[in-house]
Amino acid sequence: MKYNRLTAEHIHHLSAIVGSHHVVLDENNLQRYAHDETDDWQFLPEIVLCPENTQQVSDIMRYCHAHIIPVTPRGAGTGLSGGALPVCGGVVLATERMNKILRIDENNSQVITQPGVITQVLQEAVIEKGLYFPPDPASRGSCFIGGNVAEGSGGPRAVKYGVTKDYVLNLEVVLPSGEIMQTGANVLKNSTGYNLTQLIAGSEGTLGIITQITLRLIPYPPYQLVLLVPFTDAVKACEAVSAVFKAGVTPSALEFMERDALEWTLRYCHDVALSLSEQEQAHLLIEVDGFDMDMIRKDAEKVAEVMDACGALDVLYAESEDEKNRLWKVRRKVGEAVKSHSVYKEEDTVVPRFELPHLLKGIKKIGEEYGFHSVCYGHAGDGNLHVNIIRGDLDDYQWNHELPKGIRKIFELCVSLGGTISGEHGIGWSQKQYMDVVFSTSELALMQRIKQAFDPNQILNPGKIFPDK
Amino acid sequence: MKYNRLTAEHIHHLSAIVGSHHVVLDENNLQRYAHDETDDWQFLPEIVLCPENTQQVSDIMRYCHAHIIPVTPRGAGTGLSGGALPVCGGVVLATERMNKILRIDENNSQVITQPGVITQVLQEAVIEKGLYFPPDPASRGSCFIGGNVAEGSGGPRAVKYGVTKDYVLNLEVVLPSGEIMQTGANVLKNSTGYNLTQLIAGSEGTLGIITQITLRLIPYPPYQLVLLVPFTDAVKACEAVSAVFKAGVTPSALEFMERDALEWTLRYCHDVALSLSEQEQAHLLIEVDGFDMDMIRKDAEKVAEVMDACGALDVLYAESEDEKNRLWKVRRKVGEAVKSHSVYKEEDTVVPRFELPHLLKGIKKIGEEYGFHSVCYGHAGDGNLHVNIIRGDLDDYQWNHELPKGIRKIFELCVSLGGTISGEHGIGWSQKQYMDVVFSTSELALMQRIKQAFDPNQILNPGKIFPDK
Repeated sequence: MKYNRLTAEHIHHLSAIVGSHHVVLDENNLQRYAHDETDDWQFLPEIVLCPENTQQVSDIMRYCHAHIIPVTPRGAGTGLSGGALPVCGGVVLATERMNKILRIDENNSQVITQPGVITQVLQEAVIEKGLYFPPDPASRGSCFIGGNVAEGSGGPRAVKYGVTKDYVLNLEVVLPSGEIMQTGANVLKNSTGYNLTQLIAGSEGTLGIITQITLRLIPYPPYQLVLLVPFTDAVKACEAVSAVFKAGVTPSALEFMERDALEWTLRYCHDVALSLSEQEQAHLLIEVDGFDMDMIRKDAEKVAEVMDACGALDVLYAESEDEKNRLWKVRRKVGEAVKSHSVYKEEDTVVPRFELPHLLKGIKKIGEEYGFHSVCYGHAGDGNLHVNIIRGDLDDYQWNHELPKGIRKIFELCVSLGGTISGEHGIGWSQKQYMDVVFSTSELALMQRIKQAFDPNQILNPGKIFPDK
Repeated sequence: MKYNRLTAEHIHHLSAIVGSHHVVLDENNLQRYAHDETDDWQFLPEIVLCPENTQQVSDIMRYCHAHIIPVTPRGAGTGLSGGALPVCGGVVLATERMNKILRIDENNSQVITQPGVITQVLQEAVIEKGLYFPPDPASRGSCFIGGNVAEGSGGPRAVKYGVTKDYVLNLEVVLPSGEIMQTGANVLKNSTGYNLTQLIAGSEGTLGIITQITLRLIPYPPYQLVLLVPFTDAVKACEAVSAVFKAGVTPSALEFMERDALEWTLRYCHDVALSLSEQEQAHLLIEVDGFDMDMIRKDAEKVAEVMDACGALDVLYAESEDEKNRLWKVRRKVGEAVKSHSVYKEEDTVVPRFELPHLLKGIKKIGEEYGFHSVCYGHAGDGNLHVNIIRGDLDDYQWNHELPKGIRKIFELCVSLGGTISGEHGIGWSQKQYMDVVFSTSELALMQRIKQAFDPNQILNPGKIFPDK
């Protein structure tokens, strides 16, 4: 697709839609919108527009559709697959001003929100009403709910409560043509036409721009217990994961961390006093929650028994709220800590959870073969393992040309185990060259026909998801 | 679209694919495939093919795609929106021979099944392993899991556990072209490309033929308590529904029955000894379940308190397993009982649950205006109310020309309350003329472009979902 560069007239017209105070044009400030949290990529947009409401989004889209100008939607820029990178230039449409929680409907246990609300802000607002929105990506303190919906975000609580998409009842969406539509209704069950809600959710801003979100909420479970369980062997820790579920417990989090992940993070978060013995090669962080402390204690005891039987070194209970928070902080900071330690690439592998030990062993073997070191951690209860591949001493050639072959091997392994190449980060810009590992040419062509049905001029978030031909 | 009638050559070729023993051609037997459970519609197919495996389905589709022959997929024929009616003639592709549970994966809490397995058979097979597949449409003793996935079926347990679609992880699908694809992977989280799994689920057999289904399972909660709660007033009963959730209890079923529904069913099921006093105008049937009897008792007590506070006449506990089963039998038989009583049309309205009293009042008012009597019952906890409109003394003109205006009013009311026109039955043939109540012309056009992306020759389940132009 040949896109038009922005002319002075385009800039004049687009600026008038949002008001000149809500336009970014100078290079210094454009730079802030040139990257997200994925690798070290930089793509400068030609203009950033910050609309305030749905009508402005519609006006922008209608104009860009007519003038074949690419538009890349952007939430908080915390994405891990480059979804918000304006790889074809043009407009970045930032939702940061669409940041209002419109209505907490306690009678129906729903919340209606704009996309630019920080996830944690949304969570805290509904907890005040005794309601719970469980999905909690590690970046929940800064990411936007709109981005979470668009990328299909997950987080530790997904193992019990499901991912963001599972809470989306209805979306208001602006199509590339500027048309405004509702994908569904504010109901818990819907068999009325095609499920556009779940087609848009997780479509990474390539089919429409999400301008309003209706989420279902559940009663907030007020009690949690948190356990930290060290193992001498990472594969053994992974083996213990499916044993928990087989014992009939569904924990509200079941996280895995390799030694390096924990060690680097402890060095990065100075306020957590936890020392690792030589033996400790991996940890599980396990949370059980609920409405009744006795029940939770029973669950925790069952978990502890399972851990013992699976050869855990110890089972440590977080004794206080403070200790719980510190353990969770460590887990949430792993990504940042690894990033501060070295340039790295993060792969978002996912397999049926019982296959986790095979996946981990395979990743290490592939690493030896292709000469890279990886640090693995993630949502083991979901079979979702984040593989951080450390640049270390790899030269440009190895990093840019050899490593992708190793990553391809990892993804082939995922697929052979019944899994796939992204559990919760999306494909975006960073993983698109691996889509052929999962989908055949004709499957990808089908998805592209769907894209075409929404976006005939291919102006919305171009260059994402589909491999270059 | 102009379809070709089947020639002797077509019949010869198609019969060879499945083997002549698995072909129906004589009118007597074709008649069995001419209807489902929707109204009294009859559409005779030209041929019925019963393939045994995916490859045969693919061969059939490839042939029909090339020869522009319509294909209507059919499960058990228990549908309530006419999805399995071959309204354009041609082929009925019946999945009844694809009736094997392929694998219960206890390690990953998943089951892989063919589409022609009876839902209850599937449920009982996994319960034997301590696993639970909760969605339980009233027809679970005869409906097929493939039809449940295609129609987006629900059932009483959806209020706590979600509908069929929420359990679908991955589908093997044969596209109209004959291509065989996997929509996803056997994983709990997936952000890899567009969500074709949820686009196919609930698409009523119009986008592809489901030939294999991977479902997630959960631990089976072994304990239930069942309560029957009479009210003097149907609207009051509806008001009590959202109060249960506000009290922090999520029941595993919360069913509503108007007096007529219960009375007619008691007359129909002779083995249930329950007498209704004059005062009792509506009932709630409430189930709580879990892993710990003490917890469930607490939940049941909370529910009973809420019911008292909402003006219930009484709260009756089912004392034995037998009594529980009898109460559930009554609820499951309501549809059949109403059917045996009179010709009727069933509408599958759904609104946010707090709006239920408004919906019920509105339906009765519209009934008065348009001169029809309705019997209402359904999954009140989900805001999903089945409205059975009784033919009674209505003449052909009233039934065929006046009543649709009343139904349209009901659906407009649903939409104005934040709801929609089908919660779990689908649109199919019977509701398609009301789709414009929910979707604009351009939204419907978008869905039709998606249909076109899957089925360029428009051969798969033609005449469904989209209103006639």
